[in-house]
Parts: sequence; structure tokens; C-alpha cells
Amino acid sequence: MSNKFKSDIEIAQSANMLPISEIAKNYGILEDELEHYGKYKAKVSFDAMKRLESKEDGKLVLVTAISPTPAGEGKSTTCIGLGQALNKIGQNAYIALREPSLGPVFGVKGGAAGGGHAQVVPMEDINLHFTGDMHAITAANNLLSAAIDNHIHHGNALRIDAREIVWKRVVDMNDRALRNVVVALGGKVCGFPRQDGFMITVASEIMAILCLAQDLMDLKEKFGDIIIGYNLDGEPVTARDLNVHGAMAMLMKDAIKPNLVQTLENTPVLIHGGPFANIAHGCNSLIATKLALKLGDVVITEAGFGADLGAEKFLDIKCRKGGLKPDAVVIVATIRALKMHGGVAKADLGEENVEALKKGFVNLAKQVENMRKFGLPVLVAVNKFVSDTQAEVDALIEKCRDFGVEVSLNECWEKGGEGGVEMAEKLMHILNTQTSHYAPIYDETKTIDEKLNTIVKEIYGGEGVIVEPAARKQIKKLEELGLDKLPICMAKTQYSFTDDPTAMGAPTGFHITIKDVRVSAGAGFIVCQTSNIMVMPGLPKVPAANNIDIDANGTISGLF
Amino acid sequence: MSNKFKSDIEIAQSANMLPISEIAKNYGILEDELEHYGKYKAKVSFDAMKRLESKEDGKLVLVTAISPTPAGEGKSTTCIGLGQALNKIGQNAYIALREPSLGPVFGVKGGAAGGGHAQVVPMEDINLHFTGDMHAITAANNLLSAAIDNHIHHGNALRIDAREIVWKRVVDMNDRALRNVVVALGGKVCGFPRQDGFMITVASEIMAILCLAQDLMDLKEKFGDIIIGYNLDGEPVTARDLNVHGAMAMLMKDAIKPNLVQTLENTPVLIHGGPFANIAHGCNSLIATKLALKLGDVVITEAGFGADLGAEKFLDIKCRKGGLKPDAVVIVATIRALKMHGGVAKADLGEENVEALKKGFVNLAKQVENMRKFGLPVLVAVNKFVSDTQAEVDALIEKCRDFGVEVSLNECWEKGGEGGVEMAEKLMHILNTQTSHYAPIYDETKTIDEKLNTIVKEIYGGEGVIVEPAARKQIKKLEELGLDKLPICMAKTQYSFTDDPTAMGAPTGFHITIKDVRVSAGAGFIVCQTSNIMVMPGLPKVPAANNIDIDANGTISGLF
Repeated sequence: MSNKFKSDIEIAQSANMLPISEIAKNYGILEDELEHYGKYKAKVSFDAMKRLESKEDGKLVLVTAISPTPAGEGKSTTCIGLGQALNKIGQNAYIALREPSLGPVFGVKGGAAGGGHAQVVPMEDINLHFTGDMHAITAANNLLSAAIDNHIHHGNALRIDAREIVWKRVVDMNDRALRNVVVALGGKVCGFPRQDGFMITVASEIMAILCLAQDLMDLKEKFGDIIIGYNLDGEPVTARDLNVHGAMAMLMKDAIKPNLVQTLENTPVLIHGGPFANIAHGCNSLIATKLALKLGDVVITEAGFGADLGAEKFLDIKCRKGGLKPDAVVIVATIRALKMHGGVAKADLGEENVEALKKGFVNLAKQVENMRKFGLPVLVAVNKFVSDTQAEVDALIEKCRDFGVEVSLNECWEKGGEGGVEMAEKLMHILNTQTSHYAPIYDETKTIDEKLNTIVKEIYGGEGVIVEPAARKQIKKLEELGLDKLPICMAKTQYSFTDDPTAMGAPTGFHITIKDVRVSAGAGFIVCQTSNIMVMPGLPKVPAANNIDIDANGTISGLF
Repeated sequence: MSNKFKSDIEIAQSANMLPISEIAKNYGILEDELEHYGKYKAKVSFDAMKRLESKEDGKLVLVTAISPTPAGEGKSTTCIGLGQALNKIGQNAYIALREPSLGPVFGVKGGAAGGGHAQVVPMEDINLHFTGDMHAITAANNLLSAAIDNHIHHGNALRIDAREIVWKRVVDMNDRALRNVVVALGGKVCGFPRQDGFMITVASEIMAILCLAQDLMDLKEKFGDIIIGYNLDGEPVTARDLNVHGAMAMLMKDAIKPNLVQTLENTPVLIHGGPFANIAHGCNSLIATKLALKLGDVVITEAGFGADLGAEKFLDIKCRKGGLKPDAVVIVATIRALKMHGGVAKADLGEENVEALKKGFVNLAKQVENMRKFGLPVLVAVNKFVSDTQAEVDALIEKCRDFGVEVSLNECWEKGGEGGVEMAEKLMHILNTQTSHYAPIYDETKTIDEKLNTIVKEIYGGEGVIVEPAARKQIKKLEELGLDKLPICMAKTQYSFTDDPTAMGAPTGFHITIKDVRVSAGAGFIVCQTSNIMVMPGLPKVPAANNIDIDANGTISGLF
């Protein structure tokens, strides 16, 4: 049977993994700096960072994408395949990725560690408990929740207004029944009843903080800054006021260390942290990226959704806060997805349609233009599908040439690193010949309205924002509290530059409506929502959990 | 500064730990059978058990205690100290212990890994996330919960009666606000509202099952047998009916493997599973005990509470189900606690009181007598305190001699294994000269009433049970369902042989009132409650969490 027809899990289960000690040894990590979790996973201790502190950073490359469509783009697969390909052409490349969470695994079938011959392994472990980071986040989040209700129960000295508690409990499970709950029923010994809700763990601000913290002490202070709600005078109450940020940091003492795993081709991968890409910034941890930059000559990393959201947040939030200087951006596209942006329905993607492709190119062109606004060299990476015709491929290459952007096709999904050699070589050429002039797109000391308008005009191509009355009130409150001088984290549909998920391509002449504005004071950004973001998924009628099984040898089936 | 005055955490932090690979090597585990979690913790794979299958078992010794008092007995400390002492006199001894859970750590200061110079290390890790077993249990439990509400939401084909769902959600945190909640509020997209509650993770039946399962497949089938509630016809609905037991077992694929750690003196310790001792059986996993028996010539293990509850369940539930043949029992007592059983108030324990000691001896005598009813040789182990007078010590030794039971003083808390050499030698003498005729105290095929009356008469020394009407109805239901032929798990106060916590010593002429009878069909026992058991603790006004901190070097303070 050809490899081509194997499922992701079959390919992953037949991978020739090296012991993680060997990966570490081959890529500059000392054995003493590893904390093993079985044979193929390890955490890297802070000793490695200390040892390499004075070493020059490698080149930082962000992999992002056009606006996602139901046709799929393969961003993670390209990211991993590119790392494998760089490795193949002799580069010392590291990959830094987001960490999947356990809960969604039981909903709709599908993992989050690449696909085909561009995967990170051991895939099952990575998608299940991994090294326990998610569980630590759950515990830290829920310790704070317990402290809130406990404080109120024991006299409420801080005068917390139970109607204005914004901190929610979390669980790492798709469980719609926990979205809205009433807690503390049962009379005097059980506390004061109030409305609450659970989010899925990755939506916790603890996760966002983990991914923006510089080190353990910074993590602790950021935990202290978390606003859990407001007192009866409308003043913020923080985790520091409840005096549990030290205990929360203790719970994260291992979770703060990046996790080392490998690709199918033994490329080193640091997987660490995975915040939501809407209410948070959707990038792996700063700590992992910084460590990768010390260890690798080239570091490939990714951000959630398309470039207008994921890359924008990577550049305006993560890089700004972390002092990172990205060197280039790879924008992933597929001919199928561009055809959808050009108006083709998913069912008709099998048919050649050069006109639609050319029409849909506007989405890619706008994403390229946006990355250039940040001062970054761009490479377009096209994931090749069997259904792509030569005429379509030629048309896309021509469009890119006309637009003046480098483009490379790749077949990493089918062929692994070998399928991405041209892409890797083009990327290296860009890194060796072009200079990044990275700067954030807005000044964070501007007003919230100014920052929002800059994003909408410069990145989305719209006219500006409309702020609804409730959001206006929230902005005013943040201004009063002096919490408005932070970067913006836009929570908007990822399917369009607009706030209408059906408006594909690159629309113009639209406004973005802001309905809700909240501060994540620990993470240090202002979340602006254009609609209600679902922070707790539900399970489908026949959840993946129904088909998952394990046999006497511990072999898992039905997982992916 | 003398070691004597160091705190537990100071002693633990200055321990001379060996790498866990060395402990394994010194005590018969192959490197390939280890799954490392850092340098000092490892899971032992099932390969070890397979390799040793045909090897003869070592001797099994249960450490139990008199009825607990506020004076403390030091059961875990004696258990660990005895293992250290056996090691010191040249025995190949293993210790098998229960696993502490994270949640309670933030409530009242205090760990669960021994004390003084008889501790298991790395103590902080063991008390925090350890190897993730608790988190896996939480996830498996809550996956089943999500599946229940999801099934009802999507049409409720099984006709689950929302008023009769007995399966609760869990969280590993002392959080009184979650004891009683209403879930699934928020309208049609969030499911059908119903009353629910959270327990602390260790109270989950998943934990009881983990500790009674023979292997992964047995675990899965037992998960399938869990009764989550009843349908509208009053018939049980199981996890198998919801078809998630395979996914639940997958979540436990690592958690099912025992954890290897070490004592302060490098004695091997398998720590695995820690169910409640009231609504469950309060012993570490069968898998860990069985593995320890293959690896060690002598295995020291413990059970929760006093011998009337902990040892009774160990012998009637765990040993019966696991086919274990215990060889001896060590009953831990202190002169202080015996004086309390003799009527002395805690504040007056500093004063010599030989009469009270002699009077309180009845509790110890009854516990010894009970263990003999199970056919087991007994050694009484007395933890020596500085406040014990020579007259008291002499009186206790005389009482034991008159009663015909071996007794040994020990100073393990102060001196480690060295302080328990006499105790270890006496135990070895018993093991070498006396034969166990172990048999459970009742026939599990008898009626629930017969089994209850046997326990009350033979073990507690009472007249029999009084079954309240609600409990009578529940018993009738279990008989109708054919679920009555299982061992009894008594959930009763641990402070007395009676159901009145203030009745110390060894009362007679009393009845035990049964208020609630439920089946744990997955674990395979019937829980009979004499009062409402608290399955979700709360935090105190000033929780330990407020004093916990971690510094830039990762050093924890305020934990114990």
C-alpha cells in the first residue's frame, strides 16, 4: 500500500522517532537541560536559556495564511513541512508550534499536529494529556475561581460585586451544559449563589498569560494583574487582591517550560501554549519562540487563522511585547481556497476555474500587502492538490509574478520535507537577500478608537469602526481605569476581512461593528468583539468519543 | 540546627535522592520498563509485570491503625518508616501507597507523603500534579458527564431520567460553590437544565475503579459498567450505553501505570491511586500492589482510617477482588491517642495518665481482635512521642503482653529507618514464624442485610443495623436489579466503632443506622452511608493558597 493512502494516524504510528535525548543532542540542548516525559517528550529547563543568553538569535519566520475557507489551507502542515525541508537542505531549523488541547478531541474527529508526511509526533500523546500543561492551566484558573467564591463566603472583605465577576471557571472538555450555570446552591454552607459559566481551558486568560510571559516571575506578576471582576464601587478586583497569584504560579512551575518533540523527519519542534485566536492572540509561547531562536538558525512558527487576524496579532501583540524581530512571513494558500474566494462553491472545486482563481487572488494579494505594511519580506507557499490543473498553477504563478511576490509550490503533505525543498530554498534566499523593517501597525499609546480604526483601515481594508453603545461604555470605563494603552486583540470572524463571514475575497467600503470591549489585564491586551465568541463548544450528536477505543496493547483507534 | 527541628518540607528538600533509574535498577525494574517524568519520578510499564508473571509473590503486610483521634497516629509515617527500616536490615522491601490529590493542598496546610524522616520524595511533585493521574481521572469523569448531557440534548434516545442522574462532575479543587449547581442554562443551544453537583476528583468512581482494575481491558469494562443514572422506567443506564467507555479508558492509558518514587532513604515506593476511604475503599491500586509483590520480598501497604474501616475494606474488598493473600497486619497506635480513647481531652495529653491509657487500650484490643478474625498475624507499632512517660510505655507493653500481641515502639519520624529496626525485626519474625489464614469476614453472595449485620457484629462490636425506610427502598431496588451480591463499602465516621463520632474506646450494645445505599457498579461494591458524606470540601477563611509562593529559582514556600 502506498504511503499516499495511509491515514494521518497510520503514518504517525509508523514514524521512525528518535529518542528525544538524541533530538536534543543533535540540536544543541544538553541532556541535563531535559526533563523527560517518557522516551519521546521532554520539557526544556530554563538552564538552556540561561546558557545561551548571549548567543545571537536565529531568523524568525512566521507562517500564516489567506482567509480560511472550508477548502482548507494546510497552514500547520506547511509550517511543519517547511521545517522538515529546511532540515533537508542542511539548515539548523527549529519549529515552534501551538499546543492542542484535549477537550475538542472528543467532539469532531481531527487532531492538531500537521497532516500526511508533515506531522509532529508522538501525535497521540501531543493531542491527549501531553506533558500536563492544559491540566495545570485548568487548575490555576479554577483555584482563582474557588478563591473568589471562598472570599465572598467568608465575609467578602473586598466587597466583590457578585453581579460583576468576569472570571469564569474552565474545563478541558466540549461541554455545552457548563456554558451557563448557577453555582453555590445548597444553603449557607455552600456559599452565596450566583450565575457563572465554564469556558474550555484554552480560552482562559491563564493560557494567554503563559504565552506572553517572559519567565516565572513575570508569569506570577501577570497572574496578579488579572481582573476577576469589580467591587461595589466599580473598581477592579485582581488575583493579587485575593493573594493567590503565588499559588497559581506554583501550579504552573512545570507548565511554563517548553515541550520538545520532533517531526516525522526528526526535526526539533517546541510545542508550547495554545491560546484562542479570537479572544486571545493565537500564538505559541514567547518562551518557546525565544528558546527556539537561541537554538536554531531559522525558526518557523505559526499564528491562528488568516494573516489579517493571526499575523496581525503575532506582530502587534506577541512581537511587540516580546521584543521579537521577525525576518519574513510565509503566506499559505491553496488553489482550491483561492477559487472559493473567487466565488466557487465547495462542491464545484473539482472543476478547473482559472477565472475564479484570478478573482480570488485578491484575498492573497491583500494579505501580502498587509505583511509588507509591517515591513516584512513575503513568500507565498502554495499547497499543491491532485485536483489542481496546470492552467490553474500557471495562472497563480503569473498573478504572483505580476504582484511582485515570490511564490513556491510545495508537496509536503504527500512527500514530507522532500516536497518542500524549493520552498525552503526560496525562503533562505529571501532571508539572505532581503531585510526586515518590522514595526507594529499602530502605536499602543493611542486611544482604543484610533487603534481600532488603524487595524480596520490598514489591515482589513475597511472604512473604520462603528462602536455600539455598550462597547462605548466599556471603552470609557477602560479609559477611566487607565487600561486603554494596551494592544488590541480583535475577536472577529476569520472567514472575511469584514465582520460578515460570507464576504470572501477582499471587500471594501465596509465598517466593522464593535459590540463588546474587555481588558485582559494580566495578558495585557484589550479584546474587542464583533460578535459573541463561543468559548465553550458542544459535542455533536455522534461525538468522536463514541468511536474511540483502546486495545489490550494500548493501541488507540478512532482518534483521528 | 538539629534535624529534629526541621520542617517536613525542609527535610524533603534536602533529601539525597537517587535518580529514579538507579532506584529501579537496585530493586529489579529494567530501564526499558520505566517511563520517566523528570529525574525522580517514573511510571512502570506493564512489561515489568509481564516479565515477572511467573515469579512468586513477596509477603504482603498491611499497615492500619486504631480509630483515629485528633492526637494523630502517624500511619503513613510508620508505613514509610517500616519500609525504610526493612531496607536497613537487608530486606528487599517495597512500599505501596495512595496518591495524594492536588485540590486539598490549597485548603489546610499539610501534605500526604509521610513526615519527619519517614517521607516519600520528591514530596512537592507528589503533592502537586505528580504524573497527571488525577487530571486523567478528572478528564475521564467529565467526559462521561458531557456525554450524558449531550445525549439528552440530542434527543435522549436512552430516555435518561434527568431527575435520576447519579453521575456527578468532578474538579480537583476544594470548591464549595460547586457542590450544588444548576447546569445547561442559557436556552435551547445549551441543553436541558438540570440540577447537578461537583465532587472532588478522588471521590469519583473512576478512582475506585482504577484502584480495583486488573489491567487496561478490565478498567475499560468496569468503566462500561458504571451506572450514570436511571431511565424513565427506572432501569439503569450505563457508560456502555453511552458508548464512551473506550474513550474514557484511552484517557487513562498512562494513569493506569503505577508511579515509582523513593523514600528519603532510597527505598522504592509505588504510589498509585487514592480513593476516598468512606464512599470508596481507601487503598492504593491493585495494579501497584501486585507489581510490588513481584518486585519485593516484603511489601508494606496501607489503608485509610482505622482498622475497622480501612483494613476491613482492604480485606473484604481489595484482597477479595484482587485475589491477594495478606501475610500480616501492623496496627499503629500512639500513647497519646490511646489516652484520648480512655477519655483524656486533647489539651491534657501532656500529662501522664496510665489509667486512661489502660482504659483506652480497649480500642487497640478490639482492632487486634478484628484482624485476627480475618486470620491474620498482628504486630502493634507504637509511634513514640517525646511526651510519652516511661510508666505509660511500660503499661502499654504490659497490656499488649497480657493481650498476647507482639508490640514494638518506633522512632521513625525522628530517626528514619534506624528508628524502626526493632519493629522491622519483629515483623520479619512474625512473617517467618506465623502463617496467615486470611479469609474475608462475610460471604459476598449473602443479602445486603446479612453482610451489614456481620460487619457491625463482628467488626464494630455492635448489635446490628437499623435500615431507614429510604435505604430499605434502595436495597430492594438493588435486589431487583441483581446488584446486591457485591461487597459492602461502609461510609461511616472513622472516629468510633459506632456511628457516633464522639463514642471513643470500644463501645458495645449499639446499632448502626443505614441512611443511604447505592451501588458503584463499575467498582463493584455497595456503598452504605450512615450519614451524608462530604464529597466536596471547602476552603477555610485563610486558605493555604494565600501563603504559597514560588521564587525565581522555582523554590516553593508555604506549601507544607
